[in-house]
Amino acid sequence: MIKEACGVLGIANNNNAAELTRLGLFALQHRGQESAGIFLKRSGQCELNKGMGLVGDVFDKLPKEWWKTEGQTMAIGHVRYSTSGKSTLINAQPFAVEFDKWHLALAHNGTLSNGAYWRKQLKRSGAIFQGDLDTEIILHLAAQSHQEGETPWKALEYALTKVEGAFSVVALCEDGLMVARDPHGFRPLALGRLGDAVVVASETSAFDMMGAKYERDVRPGEMIVIKEDGSMQSKQFATASRISHCIFEHVYFSRPDSLVFEDCVYSLRKKFGAQLALEHPVEADIIAPVPDSGTYAALGYAEASGIPFEMGIMRNHYIGRTFIKPSPEDRKTAVNLKLNPIRKAIEGKRVCLVEDSIVRGNTSRERVRTLRENGATEVHMRISCPPHISPCYYGIDFPSAEELIAHSHSIDEIAKIIDADSLAYLSLDGMLSCASKDNADYCHACFSGEYPVKPKM
Amino acid sequence: MIKEACGVLGIANNNNAAELTRLGLFALQHRGQESAGIFLKRSGQCELNKGMGLVGDVFDKLPKEWWKTEGQTMAIGHVRYSTSGKSTLINAQPFAVEFDKWHLALAHNGTLSNGAYWRKQLKRSGAIFQGDLDTEIILHLAAQSHQEGETPWKALEYALTKVEGAFSVVALCEDGLMVARDPHGFRPLALGRLGDAVVVASETSAFDMMGAKYERDVRPGEMIVIKEDGSMQSKQFATASRISHCIFEHVYFSRPDSLVFEDCVYSLRKKFGAQLALEHPVEADIIAPVPDSGTYAALGYAEASGIPFEMGIMRNHYIGRTFIKPSPEDRKTAVNLKLNPIRKAIEGKRVCLVEDSIVRGNTSRERVRTLRENGATEVHMRISCPPHISPCYYGIDFPSAEELIAHSHSIDEIAKIIDADSLAYLSLDGMLSCASKDNADYCHACFSGEYPVKPKM
Amino acid sequence: MIKEACGVLGIANNNNAAELTRLGLFALQHRGQESAGIFLKRSGQCELNKGMGLVGDVFDKLPKEWWKTEGQTMAIGHVRYSTSGKSTLINAQPFAVEFDKWHLALAHNGTLSNGAYWRKQLKRSGAIFQGDLDTEIILHLAAQSHQEGETPWKALEYALTKVEGAFSVVALCEDGLMVARDPHGFRPLALGRLGDAVVVASETSAFDMMGAKYERDVRPGEMIVIKEDGSMQSKQFATASRISHCIFEHVYFSRPDSLVFEDCVYSLRKKFGAQLALEHPVEADIIAPVPDSGTYAALGYAEASGIPFEMGIMRNHYIGRTFIKPSPEDRKTAVNLKLNPIRKAIEGKRVCLVEDSIVRGNTSRERVRTLRENGATEVHMRISCPPHISPCYYGIDFPSAEELIAHSHSIDEIAKIIDADSLAYLSLDGMLSCASKDNADYCHACFSGEYPVKPKM
Amino acid sequence: MIKEACGVLGIANNNNAAELTRLGLFALQHRGQESAGIFLKRSGQCELNKGMGLVGDVFDKLPKEWWKTEGQTMAIGHVRYSTSGKSTLINAQPFAVEFDKWHLALAHNGTLSNGAYWRKQLKRSGAIFQGDLDTEIILHLAAQSHQEGETPWKALEYALTKVEGAFSVVALCEDGLMVARDPHGFRPLALGRLGDAVVVASETSAFDMMGAKYERDVRPGEMIVIKEDGSMQSKQFATASRISHCIFEHVYFSRPDSLVFEDCVYSLRKKFGAQLALEHPVEADIIAPVPDSGTYAALGYAEASGIPFEMGIMRNHYIGRTFIKPSPEDRKTAVNLKLNPIRKAIEGKRVCLVEDSIVRGNTSRERVRTLRENGATEVHMRISCPPHISPCYYGIDFPSAEELIAHSHSIDEIAKIIDADSLAYLSLDGMLSCASKDNADYCHACFSGEYPVKPKM
Repeated sequence: MIKEACGVLGIANNNNAAELTRLGLFALQHRGQESAGIFLKRSGQCELNKGMGLVGDVFDKLPKEWWKTEGQTMAIGHVRYSTSGKSTLINAQPFAVEFDKWHLALAHNGTLSNGAYWRKQLKRSGAIFQGDLDTEIILHLAAQSHQEGETPWKALEYALTKVEGAFSVVALCEDGLMVARDPHGFRPLALGRLGDAVVVASETSAFDMMGAKYERDVRPGEMIVIKEDGSMQSKQFATASRISHCIFEHVYFSRPDSLVFEDCVYSLRKKFGAQLALEHPVEADIIAPVPDSGTYAALGYAEASGIPFEMGIMRNHYIGRTFIKPSPEDRKTAVNLKLNPIRKAIEGKRVCLVEDSIVRGNTSRERVRTLRENGATEVHMRISCPPHISPCYYGIDFPSAEELIAHSHSIDEIAKIIDADSLAYLSLDGMLSCASKDNADYCHACFSGEYPVKPKM
Repeated sequence: MIKEACGVLGIANNNNAAELTRLGLFALQHRGQESAGIFLKRSGQCELNKGMGLVGDVFDKLPKEWWKTEGQTMAIGHVRYSTSGKSTLINAQPFAVEFDKWHLALAHNGTLSNGAYWRKQLKRSGAIFQGDLDTEIILHLAAQSHQEGETPWKALEYALTKVEGAFSVVALCEDGLMVARDPHGFRPLALGRLGDAVVVASETSAFDMMGAKYERDVRPGEMIVIKEDGSMQSKQFATASRISHCIFEHVYFSRPDSLVFEDCVYSLRKKFGAQLALEHPVEADIIAPVPDSGTYAALGYAEASGIPFEMGIMRNHYIGRTFIKPSPEDRKTAVNLKLNPIRKAIEGKRVCLVEDSIVRGNTSRERVRTLRENGATEVHMRISCPPHISPCYYGIDFPSAEELIAHSHSIDEIAKIIDADSLAYLSLDGMLSCASKDNADYCHACFSGEYPVKPKM
Repeated sequence: MIKEACGVLGIANNNNAAELTRLGLFALQHRGQESAGIFLKRSGQCELNKGMGLVGDVFDKLPKEWWKTEGQTMAIGHVRYSTSGKSTLINAQPFAVEFDKWHLALAHNGTLSNGAYWRKQLKRSGAIFQGDLDTEIILHLAAQSHQEGETPWKALEYALTKVEGAFSVVALCEDGLMVARDPHGFRPLALGRLGDAVVVASETSAFDMMGAKYERDVRPGEMIVIKEDGSMQSKQFATASRISHCIFEHVYFSRPDSLVFEDCVYSLRKKFGAQLALEHPVEADIIAPVPDSGTYAALGYAEASGIPFEMGIMRNHYIGRTFIKPSPEDRKTAVNLKLNPIRKAIEGKRVCLVEDSIVRGNTSRERVRTLRENGATEVHMRISCPPHISPCYYGIDFPSAEELIAHSHSIDEIAKIIDADSLAYLSLDGMLSCASKDNADYCHACFSGEYPVKPKM
Repeated sequence: MIKEACGVLGIANNNNAAELTRLGLFALQHRGQESAGIFLKRSGQCELNKGMGLVGDVFDKLPKEWWKTEGQTMAIGHVRYSTSGKSTLINAQPFAVEFDKWHLALAHNGTLSNGAYWRKQLKRSGAIFQGDLDTEIILHLAAQSHQEGETPWKALEYALTKVEGAFSVVALCEDGLMVARDPHGFRPLALGRLGDAVVVASETSAFDMMGAKYERDVRPGEMIVIKEDGSMQSKQFATASRISHCIFEHVYFSRPDSLVFEDCVYSLRKKFGAQLALEHPVEADIIAPVPDSGTYAALGYAEASGIPFEMGIMRNHYIGRTFIKPSPEDRKTAVNLKLNPIRKAIEGKRVCLVEDSIVRGNTSRERVRTLRENGATEVHMRISCPPHISPCYYGIDFPSAEELIAHSHSIDEIAKIIDADSLAYLSLDGMLSCASKDNADYCHACFSGEYPVKPKM
C-alpha cells in the first residue's frame, strides 16, 4: 500500500472553530487514518486533544462541552497516516509545546529532505526529541532563533528557511494562526472563506464539508499569519528555482471531489484514462475499474475507447482498517475479502481492468486470477500512471526500491508475473500533458528519478 | 430510510464454522447494522455470542480462543437492522433457549403477518415473552407441540405451518442445523457448498466471502435438516398458492454482487435503468447516480440512452452510523455531509440524476438543490422503480403510508416539491418484465397494494 | 472462595427512584460483583438496564438522561455474584418479560430447593427457558396460573406457594412493586422509609446509603404489594414450621454496618470472637485478623482475652477483581499479593490469627507460612464459626463437600495441614448463643447437616 | 484532600522486569492514581507505555506479548497523583526523549523548589517544553551539558546538582538504570534485591509485592548507575547541610506496611497515637478511627489510654475514584457515601474519633454530625499530627494557606466549627520524639513554617 503523509486544516475567526475542524477532518480522513488531533484557542486559552484512530474514534467520545462554541475563535487539525511500523500517540499531531510565554502547536503534511541532518545538529546543541516528527525539528529551530517576548512567527519563519523538502504547515498560538507551504509547493494547501472566517486545508473537499468556499492556493514559499479577527498578513519567505507539485496527488492520494493545484482531481483522472486509451488501446468487451481508486480513470478510458464501462468488481466498505483477517488465509487473501467480482458482469468477457498503480505485483496477480475464476476469457491491465521506480523523499511512503516491481522488471516481465494478457502504463509525457499547468510545475521523481531537492543526511 | 429486516447464515460440517460465519456476516452487513450474533456448537456444546453494533464491533473483541477451530462443526449467524425506535440487546438474534434437553437457537429474516395474533394467543395460554421478536413466537409454538425426548425439528415444523408471512429461518441445536423458508418465498435464502460443508445465507455474496459455491435456493415452503456430518433431509412443509419474491430486494436491498431469486442483482439493476431510459428518455448532458445504490441503474440508463455517465457525486465512506452531526445543522444537512457533488463534472450541465427511490422527498429536494448550487443548469430525476404507496407486512420497514410522499401526491406534485425539472418512475410492468422469472412470482405490494397474504391481528 | 447469591433492592413513591437504586446497589455490591441491573417505571413506561460488571461499570456509562427524576416513581435493582463457571448477561437480573399486558421484571436472592424439579415439569408443559435463573421458574409458574386482564400479583403469589427454598424477591410492573420472602426467611430482606417513599433491600446498609430509615424486616412468608403512591398491602402467603435464618450471613456475607435478622452484624461478629476466646483461649502476644472479614471477630477475641490487637496484615484494595495475576505464579500466590504482613508488628511474636472460615485449607496454609517468614515465632488460628461440612441448598455457593477440608479431616489434621501451632473453631452452640434470637430460628445446615427443607430434583 | 506527588520504581538484571514493575506499581498506587507508566529495555531496545488511570486500567489492556520476559533486563515505572485541575497524558511519566543516540526516560517523585527559575532560564536559551513536569527541566539541563557520544549519566549528574528541592529520580536508557535522591532526602527511595536483580522503589511495600528484600535506602545526595548485569556504581553527587525527611510521609502518605526512612510506618503511627493519648487524654467510652488512614493512630491511642477500640465507621471500598455523585447532593455528602457509621457501636457512647489531619474542616464537621445522628452522646477529635499552617514546596499538594483552617483559626475555634466536644492535635515535639531518627533529620515545614530550602522563582 502507498501511504500519504497526513492532512492539515486551520480556521480563524469563527466561534464554531472546533466543530468545523472536526467536520473538515472527516473530509481529509483518506490522507491519514492513524491518529487525529485538534488544537484550539477557547476563551483565551489553548487546548489540545489528540488520539489514535479515525477522526470519529478520537473525537466522538469527547463531552459536548468540548465543542462549545463561544469564544472558540481559532483551531488547527491534523490527520496522520498509518505506517506499517510503530504508530504511537507521541507521533500524533498537532505537536504542542510551551514556547516562551506562548502555547504553540504545529501540524504539518510532508517530509523534510534535510530532516535527518537537522535532527543531528540540533541534538548536538542540546535539543532533546520526543518522537520522530519533523514538526519537532521546525520547533527547535524556531526556539533557537526566538527573541524573548516576541510572537513565535518570526522564529518560525526563520525555521522554515532552514528546512528543505515538502511541508504544508499550520501553526496556532494565542496570537493567531500561521500557515505556510514549502517553496516547491510539493504538497497542496488551499485557502478559503466561510463568511468572515479564514480557512486552510490540504484539500478543498474539507471546505465543501465545512460549507466554505475555495479562494486560492497558499502559494509555494508563502507564509500567512491570520489573527483572531480574520486579518491576514502574507509574506514570501522563500522561492524555489521551480515549482514541483506532487503529480501523485492527482493519480492517487487526493479525493476526486477536491481541487488540487488548481485542477479538478476527478476531471484529471478521467483525462489520464482517456490518454491511456489513446496510448494503449485494447481489444476488450468491458472496461472495469479496481474500485474505488481506479474508477475515474476507467470511466475516462471507457469513454475514449467506446468500450462499455462495467462495475465488475464490488467493494465491501464494511471491511475496514480493524478487520481481523481469518486465520486460514490460504483460502482467500484479505484483498479479495474487500473486493468481490460480479460473475454475471465478467463471465465470457474480455476484461480490461484499470488501476492506478502496481506496487509489488502480488495484489494485481491475485486480481487477475479471481477475474479468470469468475469467467473472464482475457484480462488486460491498464495503469493510469507510469511505472514506479524510485522512492519519494517528500512525504509519500512508498515501499523501498527493491520492493517496487517496476524497479527491477520490464513491463513484459510484470505482465507475465501478474498473468495479464496485456499490460500497459500511461507515459510520463502523456500524464503531464493532461494537467493544465506547465509540465515543469510537477514533481515526478517516483516515475523519473529526477529529484527537485536532494535529501541531506 | 428504508430498512431491511435482517440477514441470516448457517453452516454445518466445517471445523472452522465460527470463523466462516463471521466472514459471511461481513458480506450481509448491509442487511442489518444494529446487532450481530453467532450461535455455534463446539466440542459437543452450544454457545451464543451476540451484541449491539456492526459485525466487527461485536466480534473483533472476542478472544482468539472463541474462534478456535477444532470441534466446531455447525454455526448460525444473524445481523439485525437498526430501527429508528428502541434497539436493545434483548432483540438481537440468534435467540437461544433451553428446549427440552436441547440448547436451541433461532434466527430469522422477515416478518410474520400473523405474529400479533399468535403473540396474543400464546400469552393467553401462559407464554411469557422477553422481547418483540417473531422468533419467540415460533419457539413458543414449537414448545407447545413438542414431544419430550424428540429433536426439536418436528415441533419447529409444526410451528412453521402455523405462522404466516415472510420468514427465512435458520436454527441450530446439538442435533443439527435446520433451515426453512416461508411458502411464498418472500425473502431470499440460498444454499451452497464449501467442500464437504453445507452453507445457507440470505445472499450469495456471503458464499463468495466464505469461499463457498452457490448450489440452489432453499425452495419456498422447504425445510431442510442438516446433520453435523453434512447429511441433509429436505421436506416440503407447506405450499402457497403462488410464489411472491420481494421485488424490492432487487431494487434496493440486496448487494449487486449477489444472486437473489436466481437473478444477478447487478444485471437486473442495469436492466431497470435501461428500461427506465426506454420508458422515460431525457434530454441531458450527463447521467449521474446517487451513490452507491443508484449507480447500477444509472449505468444501465446511460448505456441505453447513449448519454455520458458521470460520477458527479462523491460519497464519503468515513461518515458512518455513529457520526455525530454538527449542532448548527442549518448549515448543511447530514445527507450532504456524506455526499459531495463534484462541481467540475456538473457545472453548466443538464444533469439526469438516477436514484432507487423517493421516500419522503426531503432528501431528494436537498440533492436537487445542491446540484443547482454546483452549477447544474437542469436537474432531471429518474427513479428505478414505481412510486411507493403502501406499507410492507413482510419484513421491510417503510415509513407509514402518510409519510410516503407518493401515497398522497401525484408525480407532477412530487417533481414540484423536490424542484426537479422533470421526474419519472419506472413502471411496474416495465420493472417486472426485466426479471427473468414469471411476473406472477413477485410481491410488489409496496407499489401496487396487492398483498399475497393478509395480515392477521 | 464462598460466594453469596445476590442482593436485591426496591423503591416506590420517589421521583428519584433510579438514582437512589444505583446508590443503594453500591452498598450491596459485596453481595454480587458479576452483574448489576435496574428496572424502573418512568413516565408510565417500564425500562430495563443491566450489564456485566460492578455497579459503577454498568451504570456510570449511562447518559444523564437515564437518571432524570421526573415521573420515576418505582424501581428495583439487583447485583449478582460471580460464579467460577460461566457468567453471562442472560443470567443478569432483573429478568424482564411481557406478561399479559404488563412489563414485569423480577429479581431475587436465594436458591429454590425444588428449582430443578419445576424446571423439568415446566419444560414438559411447553415452557422454554433462556438461562439458568430461578427467576424464570417463578415467572413461568405465574404465567400458567394467570387470569387475563388481572395484575400479575395473584399469579406471582400462586407461584411463590409452589416453590421451596430460599427466596427474597422484588418484582415491578406498571401496577406497582411487589416484595416477598420465603416462609423460612433464609435470606434477609428489610423494609424502610425515605420520606414518603417505601424501600426494601437485602441489607440495611443500602438504606444508610440512600438516606432511608429501617422500619422492620419483611416477614418470612410475607408478600407486600406497594403502589406508586406508597400505599401497601401485606399478606401472609405461606408459613413454615420454623424460621431458618442463614447464620452465615452474620459470620461472613453481610456488611458489618447492616442490621440483618434484626441483629447488628458488627456486634454479633465481635460476640463470636469473644465467645471463641472463651471457648478456645490462646497463649499469644498479639491477636491479628485476616482483613477485612476477620477484623471484627479478632477485635472481640482481643477484647475478651486481653491480648493486644494488631493489624498485622495489610490489605491492598487496588488489587481488584480484574487484577491479572503475574505469570510466574510460583513466586507469590495471588492471595499474598492482596495481603501483606507488616513485619514489625509480627516479628518475634506469638501470633493468634482470627479468620471467619477455612474452606479448602490452602489459603490458610499460605497465610501461616508468610507469617512465619515475617518472624512470627508461633502461629495459632482461631475460626469464628464451626467447621463447614455440608453443602448449602439455599443460595450460598460453597465448594462441593469433597473440597471442604473439614468434611474429611479432623481439626487436628487440618492444623497439621495448614501448619498452625494450634487451631480451634467456635462451637455451634457457642455461635447460636451469641445471636439474640432463639437458636431454633437459624439455619446452620452447612455446619450441622440439618436441612430445614430437603432439595427436590 | 492532600495529594502525594508520585511513586517511582526501577529494576535491573531481571528477565521479568516489566511484569515485576507492574506488580510493584500496584503497591505504590496510593501515591498516585492519575496516570501510570513503564519504560523498559527489551531485546536491546527501549519502549514506553503510559496512560491515564490506575495501574490496572493502563496495563491490563496490553497484549500478553508486552510482558514477555526474554531479554527484558531493565525497567522503570511511575504512578502520578491526580490534581484537582488539568490532568493530561502529556504530564504522565516516565518522560521519554531521544537524547543524543540514547532513548532516555526519567521518572521522579518530588517537586523542584527552583523549577520555575530554571524553566524560565531554559526557555530563554531556546528550550521548548511539552508540559508542566520538572522532569523536563532535568532533561533540558542535562542535554545542555552533554558531550556527544557519552552516556547520559554525567550530564544527568550535572543537572541534579543544578536543581534544588525534593527529587527521588529513576532514569533508564540502553546503557543502564540510574537512581538518585536529592541531598536533603525529602522523599523516600529504597534499594533492594530480588535474587540477582537490583530494585529501587519509593516504598518497600513494592518490594514485598515483587518478592524482593529491602537492603538500604538510597542515601540523600547519592546517585547510583546500575548496569544490565546488576553491577552498581554509587557516587555522592551533593551534600546538604542537614537531612530533611518529610515527616508527613509517616503521618499520612506511606503505606503502613512500608519501611520509610528506615522506620516502620505502622509502628510509628501507633506511637503517634500513643503519644497523642499521653498529651491529650480523653474521657470517652470508645476510640474509633476514621478509616483507613486513622486506624493505626487510633489503635495506639486506645492501647495507651486503655479505652476500647471500635471500628465505629465502615468504609465502602466499592466507591472509587470514578464514582458519580448523586445529583441531589444536599441529602448526603460524598464523604458520607464512602464512610458509614455503625449505629450499634456508637449509640449512647462518648466517642473519641482519631484522624490524621483536618484540612479545611468541612469533612470533619460532617463526620461529627453523622456520629451524633447515630447516637453518640459526645464526640471528641484527636489528630495524630500538629495543625497544618504552611504550604509544602517539596512535592505535596496542600490546599493554599488560606484554605487551611489551622492557618487562620485557633484550635478552639476549629473545635467550634467542626462542632466537636473537644479537639486536640499531637505536638510537633511529641511527633518528632516518636521517630527513631534525630529530630533534626525531618522536614516539618507544613507544621512549623521552617523551610530547609527556600523556593526560587
